[in-house]
Amino acid sequence: MELRIDRQAPVPVIQQIVEALTCWLRCNGLEPGARLPSVRQIARINLLSQSCVVEACERLVAQGVLASRHGAGFVVAATAAIAHTEAVWLEGAEDKEGAPSCELQLGGGGLPESWRETDDLAYAIRQVSRTDMAGLFNYSTPLGLPALRGQMLKRLKRLDINAEDSQILTTSGASQALDLIVRALFKPGESVVVESPGYPMLFDLLRLHGVSMLEVPRTPQGPDVAVLEALLLEHRPRGLFINSFHHNPTGCSLTPGVAQQVLQLAKDHDVLVIEDDVYADLHNGPGKRLAALDNGVIYVGSYSKTLSSSLRVGFVVASNEVIARLAEVKMISSMGASRFCESVLACLLANGAYRKLVQRQRQRLNNDRQAALQQLEDAEWEVFGKPTGGLFIWARSRMSDYAQVRIQARRFGVVLSSATAFDPAGAANEWQRINVACACDPRARAFFQATARDRPQAF
Amino acid sequence: MELRIDRQAPVPVIQQIVEALTCWLRCNGLEPGARLPSVRQIARINLLSQSCVVEACERLVAQGVLASRHGAGFVVAATAAIAHTEAVWLEGAEDKEGAPSCELQLGGGGLPESWRETDDLAYAIRQVSRTDMAGLFNYSTPLGLPALRGQMLKRLKRLDINAEDSQILTTSGASQALDLIVRALFKPGESVVVESPGYPMLFDLLRLHGVSMLEVPRTPQGPDVAVLEALLLEHRPRGLFINSFHHNPTGCSLTPGVAQQVLQLAKDHDVLVIEDDVYADLHNGPGKRLAALDNGVIYVGSYSKTLSSSLRVGFVVASNEVIARLAEVKMISSMGASRFCESVLACLLANGAYRKLVQRQRQRLNNDRQAALQQLEDAEWEVFGKPTGGLFIWARSRMSDYAQVRIQARRFGVVLSSATAFDPAGAANEWQRINVACACDPRARAFFQATARDRPQAF
Repeated sequence: MELRIDRQAPVPVIQQIVEALTCWLRCNGLEPGARLPSVRQIARINLLSQSCVVEACERLVAQGVLASRHGAGFVVAATAAIAHTEAVWLEGAEDKEGAPSCELQLGGGGLPESWRETDDLAYAIRQVSRTDMAGLFNYSTPLGLPALRGQMLKRLKRLDINAEDSQILTTSGASQALDLIVRALFKPGESVVVESPGYPMLFDLLRLHGVSMLEVPRTPQGPDVAVLEALLLEHRPRGLFINSFHHNPTGCSLTPGVAQQVLQLAKDHDVLVIEDDVYADLHNGPGKRLAALDNGVIYVGSYSKTLSSSLRVGFVVASNEVIARLAEVKMISSMGASRFCESVLACLLANGAYRKLVQRQRQRLNNDRQAALQQLEDAEWEVFGKPTGGLFIWARSRMSDYAQVRIQARRFGVVLSSATAFDPAGAANEWQRINVACACDPRARAFFQATARDRPQAF
Repeated sequence: MELRIDRQAPVPVIQQIVEALTCWLRCNGLEPGARLPSVRQIARINLLSQSCVVEACERLVAQGVLASRHGAGFVVAATAAIAHTEAVWLEGAEDKEGAPSCELQLGGGGLPESWRETDDLAYAIRQVSRTDMAGLFNYSTPLGLPALRGQMLKRLKRLDINAEDSQILTTSGASQALDLIVRALFKPGESVVVESPGYPMLFDLLRLHGVSMLEVPRTPQGPDVAVLEALLLEHRPRGLFINSFHHNPTGCSLTPGVAQQVLQLAKDHDVLVIEDDVYADLHNGPGKRLAALDNGVIYVGSYSKTLSSSLRVGFVVASNEVIARLAEVKMISSMGASRFCESVLACLLANGAYRKLVQRQRQRLNNDRQAALQQLEDAEWEVFGKPTGGLFIWARSRMSDYAQVRIQARRFGVVLSSATAFDPAGAANEWQRINVACACDPRARAFFQATARDRPQAF
């Protein structure tokens, strides 16, 4: 069992062992009860100390992946099989083709596991557990912890979004923010405009609530304004959902010109604009948010993409009236967010650790994005638009037989994004969401090279 | 500023100072920027060490209640006013009459702050932050953490509820469990039966989703079976929500006879039964759950009432088919629960701390319940039914002028439960939900005595 531990990596060795063991277990499909190689053996082959290996195994016991059996060392836990099934389900949420889960998620929607930094977060968690007793027990306040909302408002001010304290509501991730907006502000049978391609979960949410979707094509500059105007004239929709900056899946941001036109159209046709800006902190460049240009815009943000998806903290900024309606649905449907998690986030925002974290992430993403664009160019892929920030590039291979692209991906252990998820109606297309943080992995490089080699001579 | 610190109480002194200061700030209505008495002064008057007072003030700074101003010591923070408004909103969710919030919540729905025990929970939080890296960052699995679900199933087995691993889904508190059930299994325009009196949040949820409610009166033995049968015959509702044990607000549990009749009626009329059992762990007596008698029943549980409302962990047990539908809506609307919080709860269930905690809570509640029933008897209140477990007694004063009861309550700083919240249609009545954990407080004793003195001679 060779674990490929990188002692130079910023990720602690024990965490690397945990991840490598998890990957090894999944790839080898061991049955519950199956015995692992001995700790001594794993340590010897990988030049590790036995205590590190034991610690890693103990963590996997705590996670329910392994069990410790007296005399037999560590064995696969009875629940590990379910963990595996679920992992596939979760990772396959956007690609249901069932690829084995230790492959490279080139089309994945988040930062890779190896980018996550534990120290500051663990410190904040311990800090809150020592000092904020209310955080351990109580519900949060309906709008969210005041100290946290204060920190959020400071960051928004730097984006020229000026809101009062009563205009910001914390949510359980951006998912709950969108859910509350759909439930509180739209009725089944009404219609809204969504971008195509766009965010799959939003499409699911709208379908769940019986709201019909009108598709506006997303260009590299933002929604296609001519189509938008025609839709507004013909169908009189009540809302417009826009992922303004570092758009999922194209990575492109709204230009100032398009932003102005969109807002004017929304005003003329009395349409509620919902701005999804969950990738905001992954870029620090110029560009005004819609909510900075028009205070009638409902603005959605999140910390899941940068800090942790586990804390489940996002937020909405809107008028007092809208926030009051959203807060009511939030309280009825969930009694609010986890106060503990809100306290942890407030601590990281207040002590500056979050700011430094996203600075590191931006720097790293900028480097990776350049490298990824170069690779795509070398492989002669068509790039939709060159993003200046965020996680994604939207691109397609010029191979004549598109099935071959997926075959090559499988060959190199690369999981591509879904061919249908980003289309509101579920239509298939050949564009791929490329996660720039994964594009420099050797598997991705090999995959891109293979698609270059196999391209027809015409290109 | 006299803080009344009790050095014999199990609550740490610093926590007591935090609570007393919060209470003092609220009651004195200080404006943002107003200066607190000096640390030295507070320490001297209350015979406390200055370091304890400073630590307590620092915690209030972290909570956004105080600010630390150089040269001026501690002052009221700019956000404190909002914290106050929100606290009133939250506590007033069931009583919007706006009582000042350092009064006794005699009608409150949870255990008092002073009952909460921090050590085990803080230990588990630190443990998870040290060992479970995935818990710090990742989404949980769609059904919930396998290790946690395994522990939940063990506890359910002791209630004779036998479910497979794929039949349990974690949720963000029982609130999300009920929300998912309403959204995934019922359509707007359909009707369901609810108990009257019953759980206010359920009524709000059903209204939000456009599901109409048919009321079955709750007797001390359970729902009135004759009325239930008539409703099923006349209206053909699709669902029946029952809070089977230690019912909110009456405190009474379903008898075995009524349970059998309810299940038979549900079977005959093809009605989905949803059993809300969030108070289960506050009693360990006999009595079979509906879900133990019929595996078609959908069962809802929670850890908010015993361990912490901040972790936001509840669960649903149902058939594979129903769980799959609920999980889908859960993922679409919230991307699942906080994996970190799920890991913390799993740790407390595994190491036995949770089991010991609820044993202590039950013992204490049993004593308090006896004392509360005695007080009600002395004050000649009418008791709806004598509960054998849980948090509540449902009772009403025999005072002829009922407004006088509320006046007496205000006089002694006692906040009563809402007169209308427990009725599905919002009708007013004279019954009170008495939280037994608060009934022995001197303010409650004085209030009950006053209602006894003022009763008419006829009684």
